[in-house]
Amino acid sequence: MSRPPNIIFIGKKPIMTYVNATLTLLANEPTVTIKARGKSITTAVDVSQMIVKRLDAMGYKITNVRIFSDRMTSLDGRERNVSTMEIDVSRTKNE
Amino acid sequence: MSRPPNIIFIGKKPIMTYVNATLTLLANEPTVTIKARGKSITTAVDVSQMIVKRLDAMGYKITNVRIFSDRMTSLDGRERNVSTMEIDVSRTKNE
Repeated sequence: MSRPPNIIFIGKKPIMTYVNATLTLLANEPTVTIKARGKSITTAVDVSQMIVKRLDAMGYKITNVRIFSDRMTSLDGRERNVSTMEIDVSRTKNE
Repeated sequence: MSRPPNIIFIGKKPIMTYVNATLTLLANEPTVTIKARGKSITTAVDVSQMIVKRLDAMGYKITNVRIFSDRMTSLDGRERNVSTMEIDVSRTKNE
């Protein structure tokens, strides 16, 4: 299954990369999910806060936050649980 | 106002400190809030996952997750927004 088009996966790029990518998607999708694992979870929260705080007038809000564990295979072949977070950001008005 | 007694604030101690502190509180309170700011947010998610995954048979679950920005004064006196997370963990059964 290919990745759904309305998910932004947080990695190691500068934070504004993800803020801009999320806003670009939100132009076409009513809801975008910001997803992160492990240490990137903090960045995911920062991205969501930059969007809803600084761009408040534009009308975005956090509609859902989910946390869970993903079972991942690490480089040495062992399985382990990795904390995962998904934040849904939605447009509150049509442009 | 003093801090409510059912909040565990995540800092720099070993993760099991917070897992044990949360479980101790949950013995007396039906719901405990795990709270963290900035880089500690990842640890807060890890603590919640250790409690609900590893101790699943005990009957704990995540009942709410909130993210927002707190306005804090940094050491140089400037105000800035800090990402903050609160995770509510509740008992699902009485012992």
